[in-house]
Amino acid sequence: MSNIPKIVILGAGYGGIMAAQRLQKELNYNEADVTLVSKHDYHYFTTHLHMPAAGTDAIDNARVSISKLVDEFKIDTVKSTVQEIRIEDKKVILEDGTLSYDYLVIGVGGEVETFGIPGMTENAFFIRSINSVRVICEHIEHQFALYKQDETRADRLNFVVGGAGFTGIEFVGELSDRIPQLCKQFDVDPSLVNIYNIEAAPTALPGFDPALVEYAMNVLKKKGVTFKLATAIKECTPEGVLLATDEEIKAATVVWTGGVRGNSMIEKAGIEAMRGRVKVDEHLRAPGHDNIFIVGDNSLVINPEIDRPYPPTAQMAMQQGPVVASNIVASIRNQPLKKFTYENKGTVASLGKGQAIGVVGKTKLTGFWAAQLKKVIDIRWLFIIGGFSLAFKKGKFF
Amino acid sequence: MSNIPKIVILGAGYGGIMAAQRLQKELNYNEADVTLVSKHDYHYFTTHLHMPAAGTDAIDNARVSISKLVDEFKIDTVKSTVQEIRIEDKKVILEDGTLSYDYLVIGVGGEVETFGIPGMTENAFFIRSINSVRVICEHIEHQFALYKQDETRADRLNFVVGGAGFTGIEFVGELSDRIPQLCKQFDVDPSLVNIYNIEAAPTALPGFDPALVEYAMNVLKKKGVTFKLATAIKECTPEGVLLATDEEIKAATVVWTGGVRGNSMIEKAGIEAMRGRVKVDEHLRAPGHDNIFIVGDNSLVINPEIDRPYPPTAQMAMQQGPVVASNIVASIRNQPLKKFTYENKGTVASLGKGQAIGVVGKTKLTGFWAAQLKKVIDIRWLFIIGGFSLAFKKGKFF
Repeated sequence: MSNIPKIVILGAGYGGIMAAQRLQKELNYNEADVTLVSKHDYHYFTTHLHMPAAGTDAIDNARVSISKLVDEFKIDTVKSTVQEIRIEDKKVILEDGTLSYDYLVIGVGGEVETFGIPGMTENAFFIRSINSVRVICEHIEHQFALYKQDETRADRLNFVVGGAGFTGIEFVGELSDRIPQLCKQFDVDPSLVNIYNIEAAPTALPGFDPALVEYAMNVLKKKGVTFKLATAIKECTPEGVLLATDEEIKAATVVWTGGVRGNSMIEKAGIEAMRGRVKVDEHLRAPGHDNIFIVGDNSLVINPEIDRPYPPTAQMAMQQGPVVASNIVASIRNQPLKKFTYENKGTVASLGKGQAIGVVGKTKLTGFWAAQLKKVIDIRWLFIIGGFSLAFKKGKFF
Repeated sequence: MSNIPKIVILGAGYGGIMAAQRLQKELNYNEADVTLVSKHDYHYFTTHLHMPAAGTDAIDNARVSISKLVDEFKIDTVKSTVQEIRIEDKKVILEDGTLSYDYLVIGVGGEVETFGIPGMTENAFFIRSINSVRVICEHIEHQFALYKQDETRADRLNFVVGGAGFTGIEFVGELSDRIPQLCKQFDVDPSLVNIYNIEAAPTALPGFDPALVEYAMNVLKKKGVTFKLATAIKECTPEGVLLATDEEIKAATVVWTGGVRGNSMIEKAGIEAMRGRVKVDEHLRAPGHDNIFIVGDNSLVINPEIDRPYPPTAQMAMQQGPVVASNIVASIRNQPLKKFTYENKGTVASLGKGQAIGVVGKTKLTGFWAAQLKKVIDIRWLFIIGGFSLAFKKGKFF
């Protein structure tokens, strides 16, 4: 048995992939063993899933094989699902095996937060993974086909999207682009289709610049989206949703985008967490565990300007990954660790084809230029992880 | 009110369209009013439906707008569903109106014959119309997406086709072509997919040349189809089928192609029929009703060579249409009516891409040349009803 330290990375999302790539670059030959555990043999672009969910882009533009991203001579990859983290034993229990670690990177992603709304888990769809958005896309087409066979079921043409945060807004933008195509394909009168976006908060895209939010809502309303803000969903049933106002919306498709919380596995492991998220130290370590680093949806980083947590975003995770990798290397070499500070490079929400809103520094963008910026951001990620060839292959330049 | 005779054609299938086109050609100006009633504003190619059902061809290659086929200055078209034929009143009751007639052409197509198998009507799919095959195609894709989300449900990858007649065989041919594409699209291991073709008769394609049937079965077996001949389906459930052997096949998709019977509307109208089909006279009139002509699935024509009915086929209907039209014109003009004799121009069954079996006269064809002949037959129909432009637009030349 070798004596070199074992590094295990759980999850191949934005944080996990960045950590793996930085480790394979910084580690010397035989300085450590690195194993990357992923449920799938591909990395997927969570921020892009609203498109294949609506059917406006191909699944394969939302993922890339892990073997194309990491050097398999330097990093072992294991396709498996993590079942339990045993901190005392320094072991990770997989569904089909066990891995020992000296250093652990937890990047397994969050879980859907339904805020206890009855029936949501059972009856709604979630934009969470390649497999879950395939189901949404096929379900929607199936509803059009079924409607055409029995036109009495008007609810098949009603689409409820719960939550008007980033994912909710981007999804209704794509869906409203897709509806005219589906109506043409299935001979359905477009005036029969309804898209409802329901949000409990008094505004869509909470935290975004109000003028941009108003712009976004106007764009989406023109595309046929009906907004119900400051309206909580009381229950989700197999027939649709019941609102706090006691109004019922019958819909064969309810997509819940209303929240993400940390992974319950973390609290079960005995790591202190708030709604599943761990307030990591300045080096991104779990408090009290110098060998456990947490990236992405499961980490909680405070924005010092407002003394509140940053929202968990892809941008956050992709900045955390390299810092975690450097800090593990520094730990192995008994060198001082780096502090993590988040740098907001700007935020863009797409509103469907050719439309978006964005903020970069103090600059607000709308429409065409915001949409171009969104493309640049997507392509930038492809370039970072896969270089020119991946950016060229999967990037949408036009 | 004009005194000129009113001709009403019910249905725009092979027989109805041919009758309408011949009437618009033969009738003089103001000699009769012709109204064509159709449930849809398009004519569809029943013999082509197995392709869009499996997803191997686009829906729009299986239909053509009625307005492109008949001259709307000469023929009125009504998009409606026939509810009742009132022979005593010479009226047809539509779901949204009433039409009077002096001459009636019944070409409304048949109904699915399930032979009373419990659960078949409720749980199986049928290759019957544009709308019904859209549902099949979307349902199949949906099953792949759902399977990928929950791989414990192996029955989602099982496909049962009940009936190994023409439609059943042609559908499993297409389906076995589609499966590898779907497996690639949804990351599914092709070895997990099963296609079962179940037939109560001791042979597939009963009535076809036994050597050709054997050829066909070998082609389809190589493509992964499992045949169960001489095996009746005892029950169709939401979980699959129960066979007479008490074997259960779990399958999320059961497509029943096992039979067609005449339309129940005809017996309800008081016309004498056997399983919904009317033994028409030599001029294609309903017995005892000189002004009612029947074409297609609802007509029963005896093959004098074997003293048994011809099977109801598209080829039969398209030969009947023009004879019915001529006989109506002759009736109006008090001229002698034509006798109908069926001329078998050959039969080809496709077995998926590039494969088919066929009989033309005494010549048997298999493989490439049979597949070419199938294309010629399809294109011939397009040419007959829509001329060169339609044949060019919808025809598969390669």
